[in-house]
Formats: sequence, C-alpha cells, structure tokens
Amino acid sequence: MSMLDIITKKKLGQELTKAEIIEFTRGAADGSIPDYQLAALLMAIRLNGMTAQETTDLTLAMRDSGDVCDLSAIPGVKVDKHSTGGVGDTTTLVLAPLVAACGVPVAKMSGRGLGHTGGTLDKMESIEGLTVSLTEQQFVDQVNDIGLAVIGQTASLAPADKTLYALRDVTATVDSLPLIASSIMSKKLASGADAIVLDVKTGSGALMETVDDAIGLAKAMADIGKLSGKPVRAIVTGMGQPLGTHVGNALEVKEAIEVLSGKVKGDLLEVALLLGSHMLVLGKRAENIEHAREMLLSALRTGSGLSRLKAMIAAQGGNADCVSDVKLLPQPALIKEVKVGREGYITAMDTEALGYAAQAMGAGRVQKTDVIDYSVGYILPVRIGDKVTPDATLCTLYARSEADAIKAEAAIRAAITIGDEPVERPPLWYAVVTADGVERA
Amino acid sequence: MSMLDIITKKKLGQELTKAEIIEFTRGAADGSIPDYQLAALLMAIRLNGMTAQETTDLTLAMRDSGDVCDLSAIPGVKVDKHSTGGVGDTTTLVLAPLVAACGVPVAKMSGRGLGHTGGTLDKMESIEGLTVSLTEQQFVDQVNDIGLAVIGQTASLAPADKTLYALRDVTATVDSLPLIASSIMSKKLASGADAIVLDVKTGSGALMETVDDAIGLAKAMADIGKLSGKPVRAIVTGMGQPLGTHVGNALEVKEAIEVLSGKVKGDLLEVALLLGSHMLVLGKRAENIEHAREMLLSALRTGSGLSRLKAMIAAQGGNADCVSDVKLLPQPALIKEVKVGREGYITAMDTEALGYAAQAMGAGRVQKTDVIDYSVGYILPVRIGDKVTPDATLCTLYARSEADAIKAEAAIRAAITIGDEPVERPPLWYAVVTADGVERA
Repeated sequence: MSMLDIITKKKLGQELTKAEIIEFTRGAADGSIPDYQLAALLMAIRLNGMTAQETTDLTLAMRDSGDVCDLSAIPGVKVDKHSTGGVGDTTTLVLAPLVAACGVPVAKMSGRGLGHTGGTLDKMESIEGLTVSLTEQQFVDQVNDIGLAVIGQTASLAPADKTLYALRDVTATVDSLPLIASSIMSKKLASGADAIVLDVKTGSGALMETVDDAIGLAKAMADIGKLSGKPVRAIVTGMGQPLGTHVGNALEVKEAIEVLSGKVKGDLLEVALLLGSHMLVLGKRAENIEHAREMLLSALRTGSGLSRLKAMIAAQGGNADCVSDVKLLPQPALIKEVKVGREGYITAMDTEALGYAAQAMGAGRVQKTDVIDYSVGYILPVRIGDKVTPDATLCTLYARSEADAIKAEAAIRAAITIGDEPVERPPLWYAVVTADGVERA
Repeated sequence: MSMLDIITKKKLGQELTKAEIIEFTRGAADGSIPDYQLAALLMAIRLNGMTAQETTDLTLAMRDSGDVCDLSAIPGVKVDKHSTGGVGDTTTLVLAPLVAACGVPVAKMSGRGLGHTGGTLDKMESIEGLTVSLTEQQFVDQVNDIGLAVIGQTASLAPADKTLYALRDVTATVDSLPLIASSIMSKKLASGADAIVLDVKTGSGALMETVDDAIGLAKAMADIGKLSGKPVRAIVTGMGQPLGTHVGNALEVKEAIEVLSGKVKGDLLEVALLLGSHMLVLGKRAENIEHAREMLLSALRTGSGLSRLKAMIAAQGGNADCVSDVKLLPQPALIKEVKVGREGYITAMDTEALGYAAQAMGAGRVQKTDVIDYSVGYILPVRIGDKVTPDATLCTLYARSEADAIKAEAAIRAAITIGDEPVERPPLWYAVVTADGVERA
C-alpha cells in the first residue's frame, strides 16, 4: 500500500490497519516519507480521529522505531512519571527525590520545553555544571547508586515520534488526542519503566482546557497502557493557575529546594505528594495512597528528600551547594516588585498568557535554537480565591532589563482577573483514571 | 498573522479572510511557506470546506500570484472554454476551429495531461513540427490573423496554483470542490478571456462521479465568475463512456479532423456543438443557442471549421497536410482488431479504467517526466446501449507491441460490461449552470 492510499483512508474516516500504521511510522523515522505527506496525514488524523486500537498501534510503532531502554539491571519496580505540562510545574524536582527516598527507584527521561517555559531538563541545567546527558550505563549505575537520575531522552528514543512531534508543532496538529496520547506513551514505553503515573493537566494553561477533555486523554493513555501490558494511572490535576508560585527555570529550582527544605507548603507540594503517592503504590512500596502519603511526608520532614536532590545534582556534575544557598543559582539583572494596585479578589488567571509572559522574558524558547536565560521569570504569590489589598505584591519580576520588566508587568496584569466578589479556590485534582475506569475527586 | 494561525482557523472550520488567503497563496508562489504547512492547510480545506467568498478570494489570489494575460489587443469578446477532463475528449480541437470560423476569437491556453491520457497540448504535439510555445505577442498576433490559437500555459501563469496543485496530487487532497474550482478558475481568469464556458464532466471517467457533485462544482465556478465579474456558463456533460470513439493522442487528432470534415457524427460532435453554441452566445455572435448551433453546423458543412484547424496547425509550425491525409500522423508498430466475442448489449463502461488502459499503452504520463507515445491508443466504436454480435469490433488497438496489445485487450474487456438486457443510452448533458441557477436538461 502507498502513503497516498493511507492518507486517503484516513481522509475518508476509515480505520488504519496495524501494517499501515507501521508503514508510515517507519517512513517518518527513516525519512523515506516526505514531510508534506506526513503533514496531510496528521491533519486528517486531527480531524477524523483514531480508534483506541489505532492509537495503541501507533504508540507501539513509534516505540519500536528506535531503541527501547533496558532497566532490568535496576532491582525493584521502576515507576516513571510524566506531566502533560503547565506553568510553574516543578513537580518532578520535588517528587522524584521524595519517591526515591521512599525506596522506589526513579529512572526518568525528560523532554526539553518548547513552549512557554523550559522543561525539567532546562530547569536542571540552570544549576552550574549539571549535565543531563548520561550514557545508558551511567544512568543505570546512578539509579542503583543513589536511587534516582533525571536525564534527557537519547536521540535514538522513538525517532518516529520526534519527526511527527516536530511536524505537529508547525502544522497546527498538536491538539489531537490520539496523537498526544501516542506521543507521550511511546516515549514512556521506550524509557523502559515498569509502571507509569501520568499527570494530565486541565485548565487555562493546559493543552486540555476542560476536565472532560483531560479525562479523555487520561483514559486514552491508560488504555494504551493496558493494551501494551503496563500499569498506568493518570491523575487529572488543575492548571487554572500556575502550580507553584515560581515561574522560570532557576526560580523553579529554587522553589523545589524550598519545598523539599520544608520551608514552603502549597499546591506544588500537594500535587507532588498526590502523584508521588500513586508512584509508591504502583512501585509496591505502599499499601495504599494514605500510607504512601505518610511515607513521603516523613521523607520531607527528615530531609531525606532534599538529600536525594543534592546527591542527584552532585552525581550529574552540578554545583550541589545551591541546595543550601539558592543565591548560587543564576541571578537576573533586575528584580522588581509589582503591587496589586487595587482591592478585591483574584478570580481567574489566563495561565497560558502567564506562560507566554515568562517566555517573552527569555525563560522559554520560541524556536528550537533559542537560548534560554535561566535567571529570568517571576514569583507570583497570589492564588485564585485570595483577597488582595492595593499594597500586596502581585508579582516579583526577575528580568533582563527595565524594558522587559515593563512588558512582563503589563502581560501579567492582563492575565490576572481581579473582581469584587470572592470565588472558590479551584480543586487541586479532578480524577484518577485507569483502564478500568474514572474515579472523580 | 502567521501560517500556523491560518491553518488553525481552517482546522477549526472557520472562514479565512481575504488577507489570510492572499498571505498563504503568496507564500505558496514564492516558496516562503514550507510544503508541510501548505499540505496541512490543504487537508483542513479538504475536510472542512470553504465558502463561496473564500473560494473566490483564493481564485483571485492565485490568479494574481503571476502574470495575467492581456488580450485587449484582440478585438471582440474573447471566450475561453475549459473541460474538467475525461477520456476521448477532443472537444477543443473540434469546437475551437468552428467557433473561430463563426467570428468569435479563440485565444486558448491549455494544460498538459497528467492522468490517463494526454491533454490538448499533447494531442497537438503529435502533429509533426507543431509548437504550443508562443510568446504573448505571437499568441495575440495569431488570433488576430486567423481567429484562433491554442498554446501552453506560460510558467508565469498562476504559480501559486502550480505549487498547490502539485502538492494536492501527492497529499490526497485533489478531491476538494473549492480547491478544484479555484484551481481551474484562477488559470482561466489569468488567461485573460472575457467570458468562459466550462465543460464539467460527470460519470465513471470524471473527477465528479455523480451529477449532483458535478453541478456543485459547476455552481462553485459560476459563482467565482460572478464574484469576479466574468460571465461563466458551465455545462454538465456525461463521461460515463469515452466521449469520442478514439482514445490516444494522434488518434484523437485524427478523429477531430474526421469530425470537422463532416465524415463522422456522434457524441463528440454533439458536445462540441453544445459547448460551442454557448461560446457564440457569450461571445455575442448569436442571439440564442439554436441560432448558434445553426451557425456552427454551417461552418461544418462549408468546411470553414476544418480550414481554421489547418490554418492553426500551419501557423504553429505543424505539418498541415495531415488534415487531408491523417496517415501523416504518428503510426503505431501494430494495429489489431478485437472482436466482441458474444451477443448482447453494452450496458456500462468503467471509463476511468479505459483511460488507464490507454495510459498503460504509452498514451499518458504516470510521472511528469514520462515521454508520451503519440501513436498508441485504441478506437472503441461501441457505445452504451448498442446491441452487439460476437463478430462485431469491440476495439481496434494501436499498440507498440503484441505484449502491450494483449494487456490492453484484457483491460478494455474488463472495463466494458456486456449484458443480456438492453439499456438506455445515457444523456449527453445534464444541466447548464450559471451563477443565477441550474437549468437541468
């Protein structure tokens, strides 16, 4: 069958066979199918959808388009965690050390951010000297040695997904449920974990704006897990406002350190505890969620979580002194406090716009080749539901210049709605989804 | 606005503005928008459609992406004619000389065939020495001199359409009504005619298989004509069987000569008279269709149509002796008669398959760079509704080799259904469509 026949079938809304899916996936990986044909197919998939079977076939074909990581040399149940991404979402840097401290090995491969803000790798690289490029052997050794490692995906991981993902980004086909689900799951399955916890974000800063859409994506990924024999739990969490109060690469490392030091509570910690609890259960270290949460809180209290973060930074060549002195992280040219300026209640946030405000400051990439400024971003202490006074701090800008700060202030003000009537604080999470069903909060 | 925004709007089924349409059309013409983005947009248009206003805006943007031919130096109303294409469709070579003989100047730019059989240009080039490449000045001079010229489209004509058309061909987005309509009309409007007669084919050998689809395309093109200020009439004609009895390049020139000589009647002549009548009316040379038909029949009887064909061949450097001696046209290695072999009625034809049978013999291109063999093809004297006997001729093959002839015979037999019960002869035409409405036959 030819690529033209495959495009035609999907254009007419028909189900592709496994052989057809393997054919175009292989062509995407080896470059034998031109971009314009893949682009037309991606738009046809975006508009006509894919069945659960097609989505799973695509996931496995993309996984098998490259190397599959072998973690069998690491004893225990390796549990991976993935977030669909949001603003101020530093969950990995909080939960990975805590989970590792509780005895579940964390061998995590992360992606780079191409969007509002940097990804986990960019945040980590804001630490002086730290590398996210390890060989597979170094990766396995480090996990066996200190219980955790967070590294970049190797180039040979799911190359078909790389091609398709890059094309989706420039063809307006990012927002396709089967394409999102298969892209995430192909990389997770290729990373070699035994079980996977997914954090599916919903709200104004998430790919899936509504709870129902997020549950749909969660269910699609849980189904792929079941059809490919890996336990998967997806938690739908809120992204109606930035998760942490810090937005920007070094700023988010700073916040993770402060949370692990026990100095800061709040939504970032709560979501890290929630996701981490499910990881401990899937990793067979805890009987149930309540028990798991107790274990994680204990690791927080004793400081063993923070020690694991410090050990990981050191193991990966970074200056681990930053853990006790966050001033060692990159500092901006300018720090400027912005006042709320009126009395009222924080009623809503355009979280995506808040993300782009950070990107415009230099914290994220517009193009792949852009260089991130680790030092910039902002601290946003206000949360939806807060009562505010004119003199309260709306945000503290970490900027490269006065001009950048003025632009960022305007963007942040425009993204935050302050009203006269109080509103409820939004829920932290909405549902736990497995292949067996949806359990709403 | 960015190309990504334009793709996104169409993906969501929204109407594009004129400015957005001009933007991507310009990018298609100058190569500044990558193929993969155009491909994604084309698929979104194929699946979500375009309004009449969008289709017209696209047509005019493609027209304006290159040179617009200036025919003002030719006195009178210049009427162009375009066919959506079919098998054995030599209408242009029959009607252009007749219409010119009746005093309507015919300044026609044609395309090359990429499909079952050659286009008008390929047929003309089967005449020894004939060129279809004239400068605009030569083109205008020839029409002023002898009343007609049929030449190839210049490279500078609607370059945006060239890019999009080539992409559609390889991305399964050919079958989009607004894209077909705008592609045809952009070239017709760029060719500089004052009025246009369109021959929209329907049936097993046409792009539009059903009458309703063909009427939809006809209406879309008539609407574009109205919105751009050019009178357009579209006639929906049948392509449930080859139009003429001759299929192949030199064979179709031979048939056109025989029709213009008055030796041969039949469907090809009837459709040429029908379309030609509308051209004479639009060209203000005839009061009505009946009057126009009389004028054309007179030009046929007196031989003035044939003289015009001869004059055009000579003017374009071809050996005009072929008009009196069709044996001067390219001759095949082998001519072989095939008998029907059974008694019955011709009940149906797979016209597309008949076209591909000719292509396989060498009469059409599979790839742009393929060289056409002008001499090959076949004569198919049978028509749907005919009663046939075992000894009757099913077809006469003009082939390069015995092996080719055997393959062609099998393909032609498979494409023609012979049954025991008589069937009605299919109508020659189904509707005349203008922007004001549809008049069914």
